[in-house]
Formats: sequence, structure tokens, C-alpha cells
Amino acid sequence: MDNESLEKLLHAVADGEVGVHDAVHQLRALDIEDIGFARLDHHRALRTGMPEIVYSPGKTPEQVAVIMERLAARGLAVATRATPAVYEKVKLEVPDAEYDPTARIIWAGAKPRPHEVASVVVASGGTSDLPVAEEAALMAELLELPVERVYDVGVAGIHRLLAHMGTLQNAGVVIAVAGMEGALPSVVGGLTGAPVIAVPTSTGYGASFGGLAALLSMLNSCAPGVAVVNIDNGFGAAAMAQRILLD
Amino acid sequence: MDNESLEKLLHAVADGEVGVHDAVHQLRALDIEDIGFARLDHHRALRTGMPEIVYSPGKTPEQVAVIMERLAARGLAVATRATPAVYEKVKLEVPDAEYDPTARIIWAGAKPRPHEVASVVVASGGTSDLPVAEEAALMAELLELPVERVYDVGVAGIHRLLAHMGTLQNAGVVIAVAGMEGALPSVVGGLTGAPVIAVPTSTGYGASFGGLAALLSMLNSCAPGVAVVNIDNGFGAAAMAQRILLD
Amino acid sequence: MDNESLEKLLHAVADGEVGVHDAVHQLRALDIEDIGFARLDHHRALRTGMPEIVYSPGKTPEQVAVIMERLAARGLAVATRATPAVYEKVKLEVPDAEYDPTARIIWAGAKPRPHEVASVVVASGGTSDLPVAEEAALMAELLELPVERVYDVGVAGIHRLLAHMGTLQNAGVVIAVAGMEGALPSVVGGLTGAPVIAVPTSTGYGASFGGLAALLSMLNSCAPGVAVVNIDNGFGAAAMAQRILLD
Amino acid sequence: MDNESLEKLLHAVADGEVGVHDAVHQLRALDIEDIGFARLDHHRALRTGMPEIVYSPGKTPEQVAVIMERLAARGLAVATRATPAVYEKVKLEVPDAEYDPTARIIWAGAKPRPHEVASVVVASGGTSDLPVAEEAALMAELLELPVERVYDVGVAGIHRLLAHMGTLQNAGVVIAVAGMEGALPSVVGGLTGAPVIAVPTSTGYGASFGGLAALLSMLNSCAPGVAVVNIDNGFGAAAMAQRILLD
Amino acid sequence: MDNESLEKLLHAVADGEVGVHDAVHQLRALDIEDIGFARLDHHRALRTGMPEIVYSPGKTPEQVAVIMERLAARGLAVATRATPAVYEKVKLEVPDAEYDPTARIIWAGAKPRPHEVASVVVASGGTSDLPVAEEAALMAELLELPVERVYDVGVAGIHRLLAHMGTLQNAGVVIAVAGMEGALPSVVGGLTGAPVIAVPTSTGYGASFGGLAALLSMLNSCAPGVAVVNIDNGFGAAAMAQRILLD
Amino acid sequence: MDNESLEKLLHAVADGEVGVHDAVHQLRALDIEDIGFARLDHHRALRTGMPEIVYSPGKTPEQVAVIMERLAARGLAVATRATPAVYEKVKLEVPDAEYDPTARIIWAGAKPRPHEVASVVVASGGTSDLPVAEEAALMAELLELPVERVYDVGVAGIHRLLAHMGTLQNAGVVIAVAGMEGALPSVVGGLTGAPVIAVPTSTGYGASFGGLAALLSMLNSCAPGVAVVNIDNGFGAAAMAQRILLD
Amino acid sequence: MDNESLEKLLHAVADGEVGVHDAVHQLRALDIEDIGFARLDHHRALRTGMPEIVYSPGKTPEQVAVIMERLAARGLAVATRATPAVYEKVKLEVPDAEYDPTARIIWAGAKPRPHEVASVVVASGGTSDLPVAEEAALMAELLELPVERVYDVGVAGIHRLLAHMGTLQNAGVVIAVAGMEGALPSVVGGLTGAPVIAVPTSTGYGASFGGLAALLSMLNSCAPGVAVVNIDNGFGAAAMAQRILLD
Amino acid sequence: MDNESLEKLLHAVADGEVGVHDAVHQLRALDIEDIGFARLDHHRALRTGMPEIVYSPGKTPEQVAVIMERLAARGLAVATRATPAVYEKVKLEVPDAEYDPTARIIWAGAKPRPHEVASVVVASGGTSDLPVAEEAALMAELLELPVERVYDVGVAGIHRLLAHMGTLQNAGVVIAVAGMEGALPSVVGGLTGAPVIAVPTSTGYGASFGGLAALLSMLNSCAPGVAVVNIDNGFGAAAMAQRILLD
Repeated sequence: MDNESLEKLLHAVADGEVGVHDAVHQLRALDIEDIGFARLDHHRALRTGMPEIVYSPGKTPEQVAVIMERLAARGLAVATRATPAVYEKVKLEVPDAEYDPTARIIWAGAKPRPHEVASVVVASGGTSDLPVAEEAALMAELLELPVERVYDVGVAGIHRLLAHMGTLQNAGVVIAVAGMEGALPSVVGGLTGAPVIAVPTSTGYGASFGGLAALLSMLNSCAPGVAVVNIDNGFGAAAMAQRILLD
Repeated sequence: MDNESLEKLLHAVADGEVGVHDAVHQLRALDIEDIGFARLDHHRALRTGMPEIVYSPGKTPEQVAVIMERLAARGLAVATRATPAVYEKVKLEVPDAEYDPTARIIWAGAKPRPHEVASVVVASGGTSDLPVAEEAALMAELLELPVERVYDVGVAGIHRLLAHMGTLQNAGVVIAVAGMEGALPSVVGGLTGAPVIAVPTSTGYGASFGGLAALLSMLNSCAPGVAVVNIDNGFGAAAMAQRILLD
Repeated sequence: MDNESLEKLLHAVADGEVGVHDAVHQLRALDIEDIGFARLDHHRALRTGMPEIVYSPGKTPEQVAVIMERLAARGLAVATRATPAVYEKVKLEVPDAEYDPTARIIWAGAKPRPHEVASVVVASGGTSDLPVAEEAALMAELLELPVERVYDVGVAGIHRLLAHMGTLQNAGVVIAVAGMEGALPSVVGGLTGAPVIAVPTSTGYGASFGGLAALLSMLNSCAPGVAVVNIDNGFGAAAMAQRILLD
Repeated sequence: MDNESLEKLLHAVADGEVGVHDAVHQLRALDIEDIGFARLDHHRALRTGMPEIVYSPGKTPEQVAVIMERLAARGLAVATRATPAVYEKVKLEVPDAEYDPTARIIWAGAKPRPHEVASVVVASGGTSDLPVAEEAALMAELLELPVERVYDVGVAGIHRLLAHMGTLQNAGVVIAVAGMEGALPSVVGGLTGAPVIAVPTSTGYGASFGGLAALLSMLNSCAPGVAVVNIDNGFGAAAMAQRILLD
Repeated sequence: MDNESLEKLLHAVADGEVGVHDAVHQLRALDIEDIGFARLDHHRALRTGMPEIVYSPGKTPEQVAVIMERLAARGLAVATRATPAVYEKVKLEVPDAEYDPTARIIWAGAKPRPHEVASVVVASGGTSDLPVAEEAALMAELLELPVERVYDVGVAGIHRLLAHMGTLQNAGVVIAVAGMEGALPSVVGGLTGAPVIAVPTSTGYGASFGGLAALLSMLNSCAPGVAVVNIDNGFGAAAMAQRILLD
Repeated sequence: MDNESLEKLLHAVADGEVGVHDAVHQLRALDIEDIGFARLDHHRALRTGMPEIVYSPGKTPEQVAVIMERLAARGLAVATRATPAVYEKVKLEVPDAEYDPTARIIWAGAKPRPHEVASVVVASGGTSDLPVAEEAALMAELLELPVERVYDVGVAGIHRLLAHMGTLQNAGVVIAVAGMEGALPSVVGGLTGAPVIAVPTSTGYGASFGGLAALLSMLNSCAPGVAVVNIDNGFGAAAMAQRILLD
Repeated sequence: MDNESLEKLLHAVADGEVGVHDAVHQLRALDIEDIGFARLDHHRALRTGMPEIVYSPGKTPEQVAVIMERLAARGLAVATRATPAVYEKVKLEVPDAEYDPTARIIWAGAKPRPHEVASVVVASGGTSDLPVAEEAALMAELLELPVERVYDVGVAGIHRLLAHMGTLQNAGVVIAVAGMEGALPSVVGGLTGAPVIAVPTSTGYGASFGGLAALLSMLNSCAPGVAVVNIDNGFGAAAMAQRILLD
Repeated sequence: MDNESLEKLLHAVADGEVGVHDAVHQLRALDIEDIGFARLDHHRALRTGMPEIVYSPGKTPEQVAVIMERLAARGLAVATRATPAVYEKVKLEVPDAEYDPTARIIWAGAKPRPHEVASVVVASGGTSDLPVAEEAALMAELLELPVERVYDVGVAGIHRLLAHMGTLQNAGVVIAVAGMEGALPSVVGGLTGAPVIAVPTSTGYGASFGGLAALLSMLNSCAPGVAVVNIDNGFGAAAMAQRILLD
């Protein structure tokens, strides 16, 4: 119930058109959903360019295709964690859908132009972190953010990271993606004043325990200005970056 | 070695006062520390108002007092996780030092005026989360950020949280502090478009395992735009907020 | 040994047909199983409509089919965690067997009429929690309970949950199914006075650790009136609901 | 804002005493807390006899005393996890306060008469589980439930448990408290048709890991109709029992 | 209800002194505890010399003293995990009570003569394992077993262990007590054909995690004939040894 | 170097046929392996009937077949954790090899006659524990022990277990196999005076964590006389039983 | 920027060919990567014979083949964790490539001659540790180290290990590979004065938890001179050995 | 039994003074401890300068004092993890004993002169890692190794570490001590070719879990040539360094 409807109701009460008892009933019954924040969310979506996102796992390729077809009719549509098999089905329903097999993202609709804000710098260590780094980078682009990629900058070869110091220092946000010992965000956090979003990956073997080692490492970062999202959650990092830069 | 010294050296080479071989030696020996980024860090400190911070645990009250005395001579000085016993000693060396026993922070020097940016909203659930919430809130103030506190808004009484919806939606950053099941950031993340920094606390008993339950809960938040810092790390949340709002 | 047999024996002793020594021997030898509580269990089954339940994993489709055929001859028969392949085999032996592929339940015999008690409200967050939610809901129906489903009410969109407040407040029991951060039971527990059975699901990735995050979250719920069953254990939640409402 | 105030406001609008704009403002500003469900909670409190509960840890004895004094003025007041030192302070403010040192509960106001419902049977194994069992039992009594205690019935001496079979079978709810291997709820669940609330305790040493062993054991119970609350959470078990029996 | 009472009852039925209905009632009501196995347990206690054991933690020194006084009146009485403060109190009630401060055991009554069976060999590595090893050794003696101690035989100095090979090979049972890496039982298991009871201790620091490292190590022993009891559970090892040798 | 060789060498020294220096060299060089305990092991094998055991996983079917063929030439040969595919290959090399698909054991050579000792009673709860229980039972038979099986005696239906009380009380060793909450050994330990070897199984789902729940439960058993082997380690339980009964 | 270029630039400044300002600019811009340590790494590679290493998992067979072809053109090339399918593809591009299926290593180029240093002794327990042991051993050979293999020396048959005491005592480094209880490094550490590199393997079942048991065991080794690498990390052990012996 | 005794015995046999049977008995009985490797250990101690080490925890100050007094009579004596209270007692028995309160080490006897080998470089991050770093550094000095300390070089200020590149590259061994995220060894491993011994410390709070985060991080190091010792185990790192440099 928005302000307009509310005033209308009250005028009707003032005018005697609606009895007090009925008005009480209508006000009591007002669906909390309508008080306003849902609509505000919708406004935010329009303002910040957040497209509708489909998380593919647990859905059949057919289901993803149907949802993407409906979303694409309304604007940019995106599906994450999509396999090539899912893309094949989506392509049948949405002929102009595109697919990035590394980022495992399907999108339909023109890639948005980035806002004029400082870049999201996506930094990562090894090649096995690439899928997560690319999920973050491509997702950030689809969320209308300018993106710079700084890959293959693991902490065991620190000079490669230092070579990008300018980029890191001019970043609006740095998304630091790392598996194994997960040290990249700590080093990056000391080289830049930008907020650092750390993404642990499940890369590694043995005592990496599916990314737990990197996760704990990042949570215990000795550098200030580092916050952490879930293991392999490139999407989450991009969403956080969007809120930081476009909110 | 700053630009001035470097030019001076090169002029000396050009003038024949320093031989090429000696110049090579001097340049090779130049401490990497001086190449520039350390100084840039210093510039950042001036620009963003980040005071010097002393982490008290593992130091004797005397040591904290001595460090605070030196820092206070140069500007705002802050010590975190300080006990009343530490404050007593600091007070002897720095008579105008102040102490907040809930936040466990000592500071000396005038509290800075906040920048004109959107507020940091610090939200927390139970009274036992208060020390961590106050560490975040007071620290953010000392980092020159405007702060609004929204306490006692646990998810088991959701209406109390909804009553602050306007505050949450106007926030620049929300720091959501919670122990036990750690659900607050997820609910908050759905009510605001601001970036949410989640701080798990070690509050709780039994299977909270010293904050592990809340930490895992927050990492798995179903709301986008949530990133997590270490258990009880109110300082870290404030530092992240500063980078987001002032960088 | 039931009451009747016991009286008969004692009459035989009283009549001198059975010697005291022999009677002692017979009574000593009486299988403890027969003392009474097993039969009481059987009475409970009749009274509360608890059908025989087959847990399918670890059995071959053929084995499940044979057991279902025998059970179906005696009344309602149910198999949980059944794959379509199992259903195919069962269908050959029990032609009127039905199958719900989401709940992964096969049943044979008419679905029972619910008792006239307050409803079991099954609430869940995301679509990936659906199989567990449906296992709980369908199982509750097969256990003769009235069921209302309130799906897609994750805590990151709290208004959707609030829209069902009436349903939650009139519930006899709420089964709250959630993966990821597992916050739903805490929020629900604050909105209703009914007992809340929390079911963590293995939904999620990274640091959800197969449902551990949701499990710990639920055990640490800040709302009173919440108790937890095992990860993905929709059946267990329904059985607990039956004991609460029909015992 | 209750119904009465709302009608009054609307009458004032109808009577022209309050302008529509002002009424809109007042209604918009109405604290969501007042829309209704908070009051329903209050009604529940009256109906079911749920007194106000103070969780003592993290509060100074003085703080607990002040709160208890205020609560006691309104009716039954209860503080859990209270040390003798807390009781001493409370006694100064609330002279008729009573204390159970085993259950670690302080209460002020007459102990309520139990409702006429089936009993809560509190069963426990060893003497070291007693504080948790008594917290559950006394709390249940303060929540107006009839309680029967069946103590010292560990599974390693199964005959002692079987001796209470009648009591278990007539129970409305069984709260099974156990540390170490936590097997009691499984055995009890097979002996009764009542819902079983399992409470793991932190009793034990070595690989009990502070109650984790018992917790996992209870979550994996092979008996249907068992749900679990947090380690040592006797209060939570009583609250669940109250919802089951009085809701 | 023992055989005698049962016969008496049945004679009364045979003689018409007790009606069949009353007899049924009496038999139904017979405490299951009396059917026989509790008494068998008692017989075992007499046969194997198992004294009454008091586990001290969680009891006040006064409580332990009272219990010990009563037990001592009936025979050998033993209290484990007893502090010197407990011993002081016990000494007041039971003047001839003795105390072993390493094993932390108090006993009253003559130490029993060992049965003529193969020895329990208690082997341990470092001096910090001594309290657990001595709890096992002294407890075994109090359980009437012959004991040989083979201490300071850690696997890092394997020759010291090999020097006792004869002792190990003649053992009836070996109790292998070890902290840190917990390798002793595996090595011992390869040197003897006797059953090996492994006792992990909480000795160690860092990643020993309170004995978890040793516990896991022992469970994964590559030697056949090794079984494990709980961390620091010297008493449990002795009880297992008694069942093996005297049952 | 056995006694005979040693005497021969010393006679040669005494006779002057071998110089002292050479004898020292020969004695120094004597392979420690030959000092005696390896041979003792061999003697034990003969005395106790321990056949050679092949652990199949990690070996190709061909490799197992070759090893079994060689072992079978010397006596009873056994392969554990063998799949039907392995058996097929073994059958080609050792035509009289037999296979138990539940226990997953292949053996060749006549099944040995059991020694005249008290029985190994193998007790287990659910049908899903059967493979582990059968590995223990069949292995014990192959190790020349008399075996009694008491299956389907889970603690949630305690009367079924009590019906076998005589068997349990006459056992020489009880091997209690259980998954889920792992409570069986505790209950059994209270019903018998025989040593109880607890075998946790990986049966269960959710928070059973691959048998961890049952393992911890068993380690924390409140019954004395229980020791634990690794998860699913039926073989290890049988080997421990053999050492207890035949050593 | 190497010394030569630097001298050239400075000569140009001295000669007036390059202005001071331009020289400052060039020096400031010098990529930190070129300051020297990257080149030093290269020198080390030449000096110590460290070939280029490709970690195969996460790369397609084609990708590995292309990289190997390029590396092989420059000298010895090595790919670890390679499946037979990878080898097939590599063989097409690099016809003289060789493959060790146990060590899962492909190499191209002549196997280097070992340096004249004390040997790396690779010791392991069971046959299932062989792949990891061989990865360490072959990798050490490819890193130009002399290697001795001492396999099948598990601690449960300690005499087999003692038979190799001379080899262990003359070792330059011992790499001790073990799964299950991981005790081998502790025993070896007591038999030799050489540094011991412990490699836990994921061998084992049940509570080995993928090598965690062995890892913790090794970290808690009671023998001095033992350090640990990641689970199954034979390559890492060889690299550590190379640094110890050739650095 | 050393060579001399052995020859004497054999001469006695050759001379007929000792019968063959008696000689066999004496040789059989020879304590395996005397066969040789124990003495070799002793030789190593002399050769490498390894003094006798006392681990203080779990011993009373008096016990440490007595042991130190005896050891000091024979040469250099060292006690680790010693509190000031322990030092006070030791000082009474060994007047020239010295104490380093940071390293928590007491030693008596002249500090040995270092061997002429490449230095042990001890690098650490924060001041809270100092006790562990100093335990490693001082212990290495007492083990006759030359030591260089490079403290306060955390990875969040990478330039401070780079400033010591020369020292790191000339090191014989680097001991990298770090808590929190434990990234130091990975970065150091990329800057030097020396073997890196990583020491995780229990520094940190929240999700550092007593050093677990740093431990896992170090085990997963992406740099080759890193091996790890137990949490806080500075002594172990020094012992490993000694074996590497002096063996």
C-alpha cells in the first residue's frame, strides 16, 4: 500500500465513504509485502543495472532455458555455473544467448556499458583459479562495472604482482582470487588502499580440504581492508563489488 | 631514494663527479622500500585519516603506554582490545587519553570529524554482541566515518529490525554483527542495497564452537552483497568500511 | 506373552495342570520381546496411522519391490529416497504404486485422510531445498497429518515470509527447511508460537560443507522453540511432527 | 498501535479533528512492531504462562538484579545460568527470589501451577548431566508444565531405563539429556511414542569434544521422533516442550 | 523378583491364596530390573574382583568422601581423577585410604592379589604420558591383574622398545599409552601377538589438538590387533584388560 | 641367525676354525631381522591359524589373483574388500576359491575348524551395517574362531537385543557393529562381561560424516570394557578378537 | 634492466646523450621484475638443474602436450600427475617423451646424471603409498639427486626397517612416505641424523580422513629433525630435498 | 655390548674359558640397545654439537633444576618453554645458567661458536610471533649454527621483506615464522633458493583456531621447497635446520 492509496483511503474515511471499522480492517490486512521495500528493491535493480540471475545447478537444462527465455524478454538475463549442455538448450530458446565456458556464464542481451567508476581489478594466482576469477570478472562486467584482469600473480613470484602495483593502487575494488595457501589478498591488501574482496577457491589437494585452507587464511589476513566471500563464489564477489561502487 | 636524490645522483654522473660504476652500485643498492609505494601508503594515511593503531594483546600495559605516548605526539593514537589495566598505565603517560570499556578502545587526540559520506550503520543482535559492535562503531568514528547504531535487532524478533528499514536503506555500508546462528547479515542484505560487512561473534554456547557456527552461516549467506571478516573482528569491519567509503 | 496367555498359564497353575516349577521355567523363558511394549508399538501404529516405511538406499530395486509388495498386502506401504529405477521395479510388483519424483517417495495404498488437527506448515527457502521439503510434506500427509506448503520464503527477502504470517501463527507444527546459512527457523521461531522443527539441507557450496553450516546455525538459533533433525532428513521431521500432533 | 488507538485515530480523521496528511504521517510512522504480531506474542505469553527470562552470562550480578527487580514487579521472573554470586545480588533487590543451585536458575514470584496436560518426562544418564537435566525440568515447571524426573538411567545399564517404561509411554514429551555417547534418546525413542527432545551435554572427556560426540550421535538417531537442541541447552528443550504441549 | 519369590507367588496361586488376576498384576509389575541380568552383573563383580569405582570430577571433595566411606565399608573402594584436595577429605572419613598422586587414584581396602594370568604390560612413551599410564597400571592392579610397566619407550628411540621385546611377547594384554604422534601401539602391535589396547593422551602441543592426532593415528594403525579407547582414558584401558583376562 | 647357526659359529670359534675377528664381523652383520622376533611371528601364525591376508583395494584384479595363487599353494589364503571382478580373476588362477559378496572376502583352502573357545558374537543394528558385520564374522571364522551372529538388534528396538541376552553373556568377545548414532556397543557393554570391540560403520547420512558420529559415540561409551577399531574395519575387529581368544 | 643496460644508460647520461630528467623517468619506470631476483632464479635453475615442471590436473591433454613440446625444445621437461591419456597426447608432440605410470610423471630429455652428494633415501610403508613414494623418488632423480628406495618398511614390522639402518644413517635426506597412522617419519627420525621430510598419503580408510590422520601424526612427531609437506605431495618433498642438498 | 666386550667374550670362547652354550646365552641376551645405533646417536651428538634438551612443561621447577644441574656437569645444557619461576629454581642449582625470557630458554655452559656454514635466517611477521621466532633463533645458536634475524616482515607490507632479499638469498636455511594467514613462507620460498622451514604460530584470534589457519596455509604453499613443523614449534625448526646444515 503506497502513500497514494493510503491517502485515498483516509480521504474516504474523512468523507464518510468508508466506515472506521472497515478502514481498520483494510489497514490491518495490508500485506506487509506492500509497505514499500520490495518496490524499492525493484528501483535499485533498475538504477544499478543488476540483471536477473539464474543459478543453474539443481535445475534441468530445460528449466534454465525456459527461465532464460522469459528473462531475456525483459532485458539482460544471466545464468551462472552453466555447463555446455545447459547452453545448448538455452541457445534453442534464446538464439542470441552467449556463453563463456571458463566463467561458466550464459548471458542474453547486449553486454552493458560500464559505469564511469574506478575499475574492479580481478587478481588471481594460478591457472586453476581461472574459472572463479572469470566468473567474478565477467559477472562484474554484466553488472555494469569496468574490469581489469591481473592474472598469474601468485605470491611465490612476488615480482609479477609488484609489476602491477599501479593498477592495484588505482582500483576501486580488488577481487583477489586464490586457492592453495590463499595469501594473495593479504599481500594485495598491503599494496593498495582499495577494499579487497577475497575469494578462496577449492583449488589444491591434500590438506587444502576443498578450499578450507585458503578460506581460513583469508579470514586471518594480517592486512586491514580485506573481507571474504564463500569458497569459489566469484558471483558473490562481483555482487559485493557492485554494491561498493554503484550503491 | 626519492626523486630529488635520484636527480642529484644523475646530475653528479652527468657532471662526472660520480663514476658510472659507482652510480650503478648505488642504484642497485637502493632499498626497494624507497621506490615509492611505502611513501604512497603514508600519503594514503594522511588522506584518509587512518590513525596509527596499537593491538594491545601480547603487549604489557607499559609497552602500550610507551607506544601510545609516542604516537600521540604525532596525532590521533588508538589502542584496541585494551583492558582497564592497560588504560591506567596509558593514562599516566598520556593524560588526555580516553577509554571506552565496552569497545575496549583507548584513544588520544581529538575524535575526528566524520567525512560527509553515507553512514556506516552498525547493526547487532543481542547484548552479548555489544563489545564487538562497539569496537566496529567507535573504530569507524575514529577513522572519520559517520556512524549510526542499530542494536538489539536479532532475527528472532524480525519486526524490530524492520522498524529500522529506512536507516538500513540509506546506509553507505552496513556492518552486521551477530553471534549464535549469525543470520542477521542475510536478512539485512535483503533489506538494503548497501554492501554488508558481516562480523561473526564468539557469543553463544555449545555448538557455536567459538563463533564457527555464525562464521559459516555468514559465508553461506543467501543474500548477495555480503562479505565476512574474522570472528569478533570489529576493527577489521571498520577498516573495510573506511576503504569502501573514503578510498 | 500377552495378558490372555498369562492368565491361561496362571489358571493352569491354579488348577494344578501346570506345576509351579514348570511355570517358573515358562515365565523365566518368556521372551522379553513379549512383555508388552512391542505390542504397544503395534497399537500405536494402528492408532496413529504410521505405515511401514522402507528406506531404499543400500537395497536393490528388486529388494525394495519385494518388500513393498508384502507391505502393500497389509495396508499403506511407503519407500523413501527411491530413484525412478526403483519405482519401475516396484510398479511391476505393485501396479497401483505411486511415485513423487521430487520427494523421492513411492507409496502404495490410498493416501490417508488427515486427522483434524492443526496443520503442519512446511516452509522452505530456495528451490534446491524442495526435495527435502517435499519429503517432509508428503511424508507428513502419508502419516495422516494436514499439510500446508509455504515455499520460496528465504530470509534474504523477508517480506515474502511475512506475507504468510497468518499461516505460520495458526500452524500446529512448522517444519522449516533451509540450506546455505540456515536462518529460516530462527526467523520463523520469532513469528509463531508453534514448535519449529528445523531441517538443514546439504544445499549450498564451498563452506556449507554438505549442510554443516546450516546445521550449526539451526542448533544455535536465538529463537526458543526450535529443535533440529539431521541434514536432509525430511522424513525425520515428519515423524517428529506426527508424534507432536497425534501422540 | 493497538486496535483501540487505531480506531480512535480513524474516528478523529472521520471527525475532521486530524487531517488526512497528519494521519498518513502517523500511520506511516507507526512502528512496525505495533502492527500486530508483537502483541500476539504478548497474548501467547499470557496464555501459556511464559515468564520473562534473563540469560545471566555476560551480565554483571548488578545488572541481573536490576532486571529481575523490574520483571518481578510484573509477574514471574526467571534468570538462567545464574551463579550463587548473582543470586546474592538479586536477593538484595528481590527478597523473595529463590535459587536452585543445580539448575542454576533464580526465580521470583510463585511457582506456577502446571496445566493439566501429559507430563514432560526428563530423563538423564549420569550425575554429571544433572545440571542440564535440572535446568530443563525446573524451567518446564516454571513454564507451567507437569514434570517427572527419571534420572540415572544410562544405556549401559539398560534395565534401569526399562523399569520406567510406563512413565516413558505415558509422557507428553520426553526430554532425554545425555553426554558421553549420547545414546539415551535413541533408546528412549524406541520405548515411547511421545516426541523426544534430545539434549547433548558437554559431559565427558577426550574425544567428547565438549559435547560434539553426543550431539552428532543424537542427530543420527536411528529412532524416529527425535529432534535435538544445542549442547547443554536445557532451557531450549523446556521451551520446545512448552510449545508442543501448550501451543 | 528372584526365583524364590517367584516360586512363592506361584505356590500361593496354586494354593488359591492369591487370585489369578492379582498374580497377573504382580507379574506384570515385576520390575524388569529383577528378571536376572542385574544380579548376574553382581555375580560378575564378585567373580572378577571389580571394585566399586567413583569418578571424582564434578563431585565435591565432601561428596567423594561420603561415597568412599560407604563403599569402603563393603570392600575395596576406588576413586579416579582425584586431586590431593579430594584425598584430604577422603582421609578424614576413611583413615586407611591411600593415594597415588601420579595416577590420581585413591583407594581404600587392601590392594588385591593379582590373578595368575599373563601380565598386563603398560607401555608408554614420554614422561608426560605418565599420569595416564599410571592410571591404567594402578587401576589394573586394583582390578586384580598382574602388571608390568615399560615406560620411556617412545618410537623415536626404537632400540629402547626393542630391549623389552621379551616382556611384550609374554604379555597377556599390552596397554600402549602415547601422545604426540601416537605411533607406539602400531610398533608394539608388530612386536607381540597379544591384544593391544591403545590409549591416546592429550600430551603435545600445536596440532595435537588435545590428543586428536594420537587418537586418529591409533585408529589407523597398520598393525592388526589394536583397538582404541578414549583420549586419556587409562581407566577404560584397564577395564578392557580385565574383561580380556578375567572374563 | 637361529640358535643352531649361532652355536655352529661359536663351536667354529672354539675350534679355531673361525678367527675371533671374523666372528665379530659375522655377528655384527647379523641381520636384525634374524634375531628372532620375525620367526616368532611365523610361529604365532602357525599356532593361531592366522592365514596370509591380501587387502585388495589399490591392486589390480590380476595382481590379487597372482598373489592368491602363490598363497594358496602354502595354505589358506584370504583377500578382503574384493569386488566380484576381482573374484572372477582369482577364480581363473585358483579354481577352488570361494567368495562371499556381502563380506567381500575371497578365500581359498578349506575353511578352518574353530578352536574350542567361547564364541565371538557379532552384533549389528541395521541391514546397511551387514557388509562390515559379515567381514568381521567371516574373517573371524577364517581365523579359526567360533562365531555367532546376532543381527538386526538396533538400540531403537531394545527388546530385540534383550532377547539375545544369554548369547551376549556367554560370549568370549562381542564385536558390536553400528552406524548412525553408534549406541550399540554401550548397551551391549552393559549386558555382558565380555570384552566389546566396537566397529563404527560409515552407514548414515547428513551429520554422520562418513561414520565420524558413530566413531565418536563409541569412543565416549559410558560402558566399561569397550574398545574401538577404525570405521568399517571389520577385519581389524576380527584380528583383535583372535588375539584375545587365541593368544 | 640488467647491469649492462644500466651501465649503458648511465654512460649515455655521462656523455650527455640522455638528459637527467629522461634518465630519471627511465629508471623510475624500470619494471621491478627486472631488478634482479627473477634472473637470479633463472641462474639457480641452471645451477641446480631444476627443470621446468608442468602440473597436469586441470589442463587438457592437448594443453599439456603443447607446453611439453615447447619446454622440451629448451631442455629437460617434466609433467607431474599425468594420466596415460595425457601421455598419449604428449607422445604425439614429443616422440622421445617417457612415462612412469606409478609415479605418474612424464619427462622428455635425457634423465640427468645425479650430483655427487649424499643420497635421498625414499622410505615407504605399504604398497598403496607407492605412487607418492615414486613421485618423490623419480622427481628427485630428475632434479639431479642420487636416490635410494627403501620400500615396504612399515612400523608394524619394525625389523624390516632396522635392516636398512646403514642406508638410513648414510642418507643426505630421508623422505619418509606413509599413510594410515603416519608413524614412519618418527621412527626413521630416531634412526638417522639426516633431515627427514615426511609425506603423509591419503592411503587408508575410515578415520584416516583422506590423509589427515597421517598428517597430524607427522606434525606431532616426537623425533627432532622432521618437517612435513602436504598430503600426497611427493613432488614437494623432492623439491625440498633438492634445496637441502644442492642449494 | 661394544666391540671390545664382544671380542673379549669370543676370546674367552676360543680359550675355552666360556662354554659355547653360555656364550650363546650371553649373546642372545645382549640388549639390542647395545648393538650399535644408540652409540652412533651419541657420536652424532658429539659431532654436531647437539646439547641435551629439557622440555620444561609438565615438570616442576625443582625437577628441571635437578636435571639441568646434572646435564650442566657434562656440557651445555638447555631447557625450553621455561617460565621465570623455573629459571629461579635452576639458578639456585646452576649459578651460571642464563635465561632468555622471550625465547623462554634457559641454558648453562658457554654458548657454542657457530660452525662456518651458511646462516639460518629466522624471518617473522608480527611482534606476537617473536617468542616462537626467538625460540628457533636462540635454539639454532645453541646448536652451533650462525643465525640472522629478519623480523617484522609481514606480507601485508611486502616492501619490508623485499628489503632483505640479499639476506634471504644467501641463507643456508630460512625459518619462516608466521601466525594469522601464514603466508610468509610462500612469499619467502619464491625469493630464495634455500630450503624454507615454515613454523605456524598460534597467534591470531577467531578463525585462526589456535594456529590451524596458518598451518593449513603453509602446508598448501604454492612455493616449492617449503616444509612445515608443528604449531609454535620453534625448537623443531632449529633441530631441522641443524640436520640440514651440519649433518
